[in-house]
Amino acid sequence: MKRFKFKETLRVRFSETDAQGVVWNGNYLIYFDVALTAYLRAMGLAYQEAVGEGYEFTLARFVIDFKAPAAFDDPVEVYTGVTRIGNSSIHFGFEMFNVDNGLLLTQGEAIYVVIDRRAGASTRVPDRFRELAGKFEGKDFSAAA
Amino acid sequence: MKRFKFKETLRVRFSETDAQGVVWNGNYLIYFDVALTAYLRAMGLAYQEAVGEGYEFTLARFVIDFKAPAAFDDPVEVYTGVTRIGNSSIHFGFEMFNVDNGLLLTQGEAIYVVIDRRAGASTRVPDRFRELAGKFEGKDFSAAA
Amino acid sequence: MKRFKFKETLRVRFSETDAQGVVWNGNYLIYFDVALTAYLRAMGLAYQEAVGEGYEFTLARFVIDFKAPAAFDDPVEVYTGVTRIGNSSIHFGFEMFNVDNGLLLTQGEAIYVVIDRRAGASTRVPDRFRELAGKFEGKDFSAAA
Amino acid sequence: MKRFKFKETLRVRFSETDAQGVVWNGNYLIYFDVALTAYLRAMGLAYQEAVGEGYEFTLARFVIDFKAPAAFDDPVEVYTGVTRIGNSSIHFGFEMFNVDNGLLLTQGEAIYVVIDRRAGASTRVPDRFRELAGKFEGKDFSAAA
Repeated sequence: MKRFKFKETLRVRFSETDAQGVVWNGNYLIYFDVALTAYLRAMGLAYQEAVGEGYEFTLARFVIDFKAPAAFDDPVEVYTGVTRIGNSSIHFGFEMFNVDNGLLLTQGEAIYVVIDRRAGASTRVPDRFRELAGKFEGKDFSAAA
Repeated sequence: MKRFKFKETLRVRFSETDAQGVVWNGNYLIYFDVALTAYLRAMGLAYQEAVGEGYEFTLARFVIDFKAPAAFDDPVEVYTGVTRIGNSSIHFGFEMFNVDNGLLLTQGEAIYVVIDRRAGASTRVPDRFRELAGKFEGKDFSAAA
Repeated sequence: MKRFKFKETLRVRFSETDAQGVVWNGNYLIYFDVALTAYLRAMGLAYQEAVGEGYEFTLARFVIDFKAPAAFDDPVEVYTGVTRIGNSSIHFGFEMFNVDNGLLLTQGEAIYVVIDRRAGASTRVPDRFRELAGKFEGKDFSAAA
Repeated sequence: MKRFKFKETLRVRFSETDAQGVVWNGNYLIYFDVALTAYLRAMGLAYQEAVGEGYEFTLARFVIDFKAPAAFDDPVEVYTGVTRIGNSSIHFGFEMFNVDNGLLLTQGEAIYVVIDRRAGASTRVPDRFRELAGKFEGKDFSAAA
């Protein structure tokens, strides 16, 4: 069983490969970002909306473990989900698999911080986000964990 | 003799290569863009300034001929210069060479149009740009060619 | 009516935008490349196969006209098709549209040359490719045009 | 005082920015990769050579903390160095700064594993690499730490 219920499927583009014949390491962040956008949409939030209304999501930390390489045209599944919401931070976990052979390609974590644009400082994760994420993941994110 | 007097030197990054072992075609636009920024600076214009004050440079056309591939860590020279200034358009030519063996890698042309942001429409290339480019290239760009 | 019958639909990724708030110019080549891969697959050729068996497709020329910008999360349709097959060259035309408003974003042409790897030189476009492309486009590409 | 003695200086390219007006998060891996290549060269190893002779460096883990954003044309210093060599792993630390204001932009760690291509499995970090890195950093990396 997969760790996350949401997944986004995509294919490796030729422009994402490198001279070792596989996906260039930095490009896995693209895949995570694409999955995150789709995840927020599935949760009922346009990314624009999620970051709008005076708030901004800023990536604070990204950790990625490379397990196996993906190659051109490989179909890839990117699973992601909110794993924890702190006071001003949102933790997303992710796992990427090769669809054809089920191989785990990468896994990791992205920690975002919510910034209040006017104040220019981190602020409490909005309740609306806590509710939507809680509903989507079947967890209680109402208080900082 | 080279066609342009200005050049920017750079090295091919690993992230710019693809699974054929050479620079991915689309990445040559990065090299041209880097050279253009350096060219404007050499001419006495910060890119910010060039596009500032209510104006914007918008790329309207890009033509590139691929002659020979560049590989990881290859030193590359990007020659560029203004070749023509129309009423609202600026034509830049470029040629890229491998520094080690002198091979021509790509050549082409980029045509930018000057946009008046308030009007949201193309406008005459500012005289200041015509003067600076003319001085730098030793040509008269004062009238539309 | 559109100029080409084949299309690939995709969404603009955040990583493809630039500080002007729209897709960075060079990234439209990614979209064309993605469409080309899908086009070859639809025609009955894996890209791997198309370039395999001792042959290689090398991009010789790329021309792109920028008509309107695309922004993050915009749905984009990339239409493409073979327009001409010369002796050793294959011409693809393309047009990209914003799905939401039908706006033409870019249009252009990509010319590939078929290389015989052993000889290291251009060679006649294989008959198999001429047949498949002809069948797909409803044209006769059997002779060099 | 900086944590690492080696640095590579570069400027943020326009193509590396995103619609938030700053460097897209994934592109900091490009900067680290560029610095790593320069570091290996400074140490007396061509990257080609470092990965050659039957060995390959594979990125196993990348951790990055984002502290402050960089914008178009910002001059950036990327400091890096070997911090630890295990049996088959090499740990590189890095810190990136804005040259103009000294601000810390990102910091993190990259862990590479040495792969024996024939065996297709991890192998002991070659003594030649241990010696060169030890000499360059003024440390003893001869045994696994």
